[in-house]
Amino acid sequence: MKGFAMIKIGEVGWIEAKKPEAGPLDAIVKPLALSPCTSDVHTVWAGAIGERFNMVLGHEAVGEVVEVGPLVKDFKPGDRVIVPAITPDWGALESQAGFPQHSGGMLSGWKFSNFKDGVFGEFFHVNEADANLGHLPDGIAIEDAVMLPDMVPTGFHGVELAQVTFGDTVVVVGIGPVGLMSVAGCALHGAGRIMAVGSRPNCVEVAKKYGATDIINYKKGDIVEQVMDLTKGKGVDKVVIAGGDVDTFDQAIRMLKPGGRIGNVNYLGEGDYVKIPRVDWGVGMGHKTISAGLTPGGRYKMEKLATLLQTKRLDTSLLLTHRFKGFEHIEEALLLMKDKPADLIKPVVTL
Amino acid sequence: MKGFAMIKIGEVGWIEAKKPEAGPLDAIVKPLALSPCTSDVHTVWAGAIGERFNMVLGHEAVGEVVEVGPLVKDFKPGDRVIVPAITPDWGALESQAGFPQHSGGMLSGWKFSNFKDGVFGEFFHVNEADANLGHLPDGIAIEDAVMLPDMVPTGFHGVELAQVTFGDTVVVVGIGPVGLMSVAGCALHGAGRIMAVGSRPNCVEVAKKYGATDIINYKKGDIVEQVMDLTKGKGVDKVVIAGGDVDTFDQAIRMLKPGGRIGNVNYLGEGDYVKIPRVDWGVGMGHKTISAGLTPGGRYKMEKLATLLQTKRLDTSLLLTHRFKGFEHIEEALLLMKDKPADLIKPVVTL
Amino acid sequence: MKGFAMIKIGEVGWIEAKKPEAGPLDAIVKPLALSPCTSDVHTVWAGAIGERFNMVLGHEAVGEVVEVGPLVKDFKPGDRVIVPAITPDWGALESQAGFPQHSGGMLSGWKFSNFKDGVFGEFFHVNEADANLGHLPDGIAIEDAVMLPDMVPTGFHGVELAQVTFGDTVVVVGIGPVGLMSVAGCALHGAGRIMAVGSRPNCVEVAKKYGATDIINYKKGDIVEQVMDLTKGKGVDKVVIAGGDVDTFDQAIRMLKPGGRIGNVNYLGEGDYVKIPRVDWGVGMGHKTISAGLTPGGRYKMEKLATLLQTKRLDTSLLLTHRFKGFEHIEEALLLMKDKPADLIKPVVTL
Amino acid sequence: MKGFAMIKIGEVGWIEAKKPEAGPLDAIVKPLALSPCTSDVHTVWAGAIGERFNMVLGHEAVGEVVEVGPLVKDFKPGDRVIVPAITPDWGALESQAGFPQHSGGMLSGWKFSNFKDGVFGEFFHVNEADANLGHLPDGIAIEDAVMLPDMVPTGFHGVELAQVTFGDTVVVVGIGPVGLMSVAGCALHGAGRIMAVGSRPNCVEVAKKYGATDIINYKKGDIVEQVMDLTKGKGVDKVVIAGGDVDTFDQAIRMLKPGGRIGNVNYLGEGDYVKIPRVDWGVGMGHKTISAGLTPGGRYKMEKLATLLQTKRLDTSLLLTHRFKGFEHIEEALLLMKDKPADLIKPVVTL
Repeated sequence: MKGFAMIKIGEVGWIEAKKPEAGPLDAIVKPLALSPCTSDVHTVWAGAIGERFNMVLGHEAVGEVVEVGPLVKDFKPGDRVIVPAITPDWGALESQAGFPQHSGGMLSGWKFSNFKDGVFGEFFHVNEADANLGHLPDGIAIEDAVMLPDMVPTGFHGVELAQVTFGDTVVVVGIGPVGLMSVAGCALHGAGRIMAVGSRPNCVEVAKKYGATDIINYKKGDIVEQVMDLTKGKGVDKVVIAGGDVDTFDQAIRMLKPGGRIGNVNYLGEGDYVKIPRVDWGVGMGHKTISAGLTPGGRYKMEKLATLLQTKRLDTSLLLTHRFKGFEHIEEALLLMKDKPADLIKPVVTL
Repeated sequence: MKGFAMIKIGEVGWIEAKKPEAGPLDAIVKPLALSPCTSDVHTVWAGAIGERFNMVLGHEAVGEVVEVGPLVKDFKPGDRVIVPAITPDWGALESQAGFPQHSGGMLSGWKFSNFKDGVFGEFFHVNEADANLGHLPDGIAIEDAVMLPDMVPTGFHGVELAQVTFGDTVVVVGIGPVGLMSVAGCALHGAGRIMAVGSRPNCVEVAKKYGATDIINYKKGDIVEQVMDLTKGKGVDKVVIAGGDVDTFDQAIRMLKPGGRIGNVNYLGEGDYVKIPRVDWGVGMGHKTISAGLTPGGRYKMEKLATLLQTKRLDTSLLLTHRFKGFEHIEEALLLMKDKPADLIKPVVTL
Repeated sequence: MKGFAMIKIGEVGWIEAKKPEAGPLDAIVKPLALSPCTSDVHTVWAGAIGERFNMVLGHEAVGEVVEVGPLVKDFKPGDRVIVPAITPDWGALESQAGFPQHSGGMLSGWKFSNFKDGVFGEFFHVNEADANLGHLPDGIAIEDAVMLPDMVPTGFHGVELAQVTFGDTVVVVGIGPVGLMSVAGCALHGAGRIMAVGSRPNCVEVAKKYGATDIINYKKGDIVEQVMDLTKGKGVDKVVIAGGDVDTFDQAIRMLKPGGRIGNVNYLGEGDYVKIPRVDWGVGMGHKTISAGLTPGGRYKMEKLATLLQTKRLDTSLLLTHRFKGFEHIEEALLLMKDKPADLIKPVVTL
Repeated sequence: MKGFAMIKIGEVGWIEAKKPEAGPLDAIVKPLALSPCTSDVHTVWAGAIGERFNMVLGHEAVGEVVEVGPLVKDFKPGDRVIVPAITPDWGALESQAGFPQHSGGMLSGWKFSNFKDGVFGEFFHVNEADANLGHLPDGIAIEDAVMLPDMVPTGFHGVELAQVTFGDTVVVVGIGPVGLMSVAGCALHGAGRIMAVGSRPNCVEVAKKYGATDIINYKKGDIVEQVMDLTKGKGVDKVVIAGGDVDTFDQAIRMLKPGGRIGNVNYLGEGDYVKIPRVDWGVGMGHKTISAGLTPGGRYKMEKLATLLQTKRLDTSLLLTHRFKGFEHIEEALLLMKDKPADLIKPVVTL
């Protein structure tokens, strides 16, 4: 079968890949809509997960089931499904402990285009299909739905980790597609004032639509100072980090009230250390909690979050700046993510 | 001073009351906007808290500070303030344990028109002013703001107790003003499908505006059956109870999934027992958690929730069906709450 | 193979049962130590789960693996294992939501001697072996270890549900083997004063060894009054219910402080309703939270709790009043649980 | 009155201080037992809180009430009291948000020998006496009780922040008096294996008595390697940090499982940054949560923790290596804390 793959670090291309086979619990799915992710760019051009050869890329898909293993009960060929980016081993000790994304080892719940071929193929393999596919409800466009595998739950997980609730004043750092979902998630989880840190005009416009009440442009000065000015020196209740780098935590700690929380969902690609400023962290006693994690994945999250699209509480279409029709356009879509033209938020390819 | 009071159980009227005095930590406030509550009706006509003579009624007010005690630091005469219905003793053991509403004994954080005169006077007394007044921010109409002392935090507390989060399917029982705030709170705290139980047309209309996706009319059949039909027999994740009676819990347990939660904020005025159906409760092992409590009150909640009005995420004006101008109309407003004409949700009186 | 079975409601006996077979994820285990449970008694003589014919009883076992399915990775024939009473389907939506004990439906994580033959056979079947067996560490006697499948995690789950923590004053209702593990669990989770409700002298003695500071004998008067006397009218922080019946909740609510929690792990076999006293429950607003649930089961819990036996923090041998050697004694052991002689806490059979 | 004071950074001595006066809510207390703390050493010789002149030192005391303000209800002259090191303003917004230790600003709940004279005087002042004094129960020696103001709640707070529970494998870094209370707290909150990091023989001996199952001596090699060896490469569930420095967090992250938690209660006196190793932190996605904070203080904690001494679950006397009789010995006791002779854990002075 055909697949769009990482040939090696720094190189992508179309390959003839082996069609996947379903074990007893698994499913084979063909994609209906696909979206490339910044993680794909990191994988190929930053070597983020190390060298890989001829590995089919992609982990954001909705599709149609074409085959299921004999132990699969809840899905059958022809079913339209949401496929989470993270597909845990649900019986693993880490899953039983509440962290399925780390089943079998830290981050090992992430399998697509990491431990096996991803979703940018004519077919792809899903482990533990009953637990890792979600039924796609009627009434949701597949382009909108393809934001459910990663953008929505990752952006929202930052909100969960920061424990945003009624009336919180929150800073969201980063307004790429994940950060925008964090902004939307804050608004949908009770935040009052939402200060979004970013500068690209198209993203700023969408951030406001999703509920940002203030935009903080790092090009206009130190973001900590701007936040402290806006809050009359008090700082904020929560910070969701969905962009930036290892130094962003220094800023986040400094803008946070004692008792505040950081929720990070940003992949940190470089730097030896995340640095926490000792004095602003209350010399180790300020109750500024730092939580950071990969979205959990799995069927339960997919089906629950889909209800927000069904009930129109969340409109993911605002993210979709570039729409392609035809599998062959996945290459173009991925290169857009790499090149990040000014008008890009997120491309989507329907098949 | 003049006050509108409970003369005794079953009787209300205007009285000449003693003007309150401020202790070292206290404030004296004159009302700018007032709203009567169903609790006032229970207090007078159901004798809910026992006999009281010549007690000024009312616990929902925004006002202007006219006097503060010598230890008050953050407020001064002339400040416009939100006055929470619940004004705890913040140093009490119960407050330190996280339950200020029960400071000094169960429900004893509720002081207005319970242990002392309420807010329907020319002046009223607020204990621990720095901790129990909230600054009223600019840009919020006082009519809208007077929903902050009780309707908003009580409705939202049901959402907090039920731990509503992203994608939950929730039933809200009752769509009076508190129930409507629970509906709004569910939508603002991530719920997907929100099924509101009620029948009055004006409330139904507002419930939909606040985010209800389904309306369940108990006049059209058993509400448990209706919920099970709507969920294809699966039941719901959470139930917020903001109406009904002691028998509502039986229904709530039966419509709840295992692992679900009930959050009750409804005052239960009659009946010896709340009855939990043994078998549907999983013979004591179904993890259907029952939580129930009075809203916490205090300044922190008032100021945080006010940001939701400032940022226009919550529009309390939809509740305000009857608006009066002039202190003397508080009587008419209260009688409306007693008589509940078809077009009533909540009356408000500005001064 | 031979098995000790429920022939029908009210009747037990030895049967020739079909030797179980392992599916791809499963294991076949032969018992090394077994213990009958009050639940077995309820199943047979109270018909608690309905009629069953020729169903092998038992759900408390440690054993030796004799066969594993081809997808099992972490266990092999010859491994000595702890077998949890509850063996969930870990990929189920309920498990993903944090409630594996309800995988596939309320209480459906309980499979042994419920949906399939139990452990009182020459061999028994374990679903999802990698997720539902625990390695038995060296240095733990098998008699002591056979308290890990049910007695320890069930007793401790009451402590978890009640959220017992440092310095809490707790009442534990019931000092049978589960209640005694609740007492031990309270002491191991920070409780200060632990008031154990019971009357049997041998259980009272063991309760004190596990950390009970006060014994409340219901034969000596109303237990609520006794608790209120002991606490000078203040009541307690938490109540763990591991005995009694549907009326126990009425007492528990009345002895609880506002803000308190009930954690129930007692099977409620009779009565239509659990009755919550309206006024003592704060007319629905007292924050006396009622949680109740089946222990979660699974490998993670087994292996974690086993460390408490390894490190000698918990000595389960105090429960073991009757020890038998030989599979044939399982009948005698079960009848002891039914007849409850005065000197019984828990019988164990080693093979 | 006489007081033992910080004259300036680097210098201590006896001074004639002004006798404190009680405001309406306050109490004046005379000490019955005192203990110096490493924080006093930091304050004086490291200038940890900046320059102070002629400030009476000390924040660990039990005493006798000699005077109360007119609004104090629950205490009267002659009462024997436990005085928490942290005495919050309970009405502050931070307290209402659940963080009384930060009332009025980060760490500002700490008042003794910080914003006002400490407890090493003939008399000392306690703000909000009803909320910040605890009744000393009968049957607790005052020497043992003087560990309640700081050592016990600080050590235990590390356990709370790390959320230690049944069966956890925990590393406790540091076995000075706070670290030893963390070890005891882990054992009292369900931990299975407790690995204590330290080297001083007397502390090692006491750590074992409090429940440490393994001792890790940093002089015998890298502590991360030792932990990984002891856990067969798996790492631990939780790390409580009660010693070390800013670099300890690097080690803690590396020995922690994904999904693990760090609870820090160690004062970090030096270094610009706490450094979190990016890769071992799961490139920002490993769910290794970092929480760190000052103990909450207040009456509720004091009275609850006192029950653990009453019920003999916690024996603080093991900490007390040096006992003095007479106020004048406070100087000698403080210098012991500064010089840390090999046989010292904690000195106590009774009056």
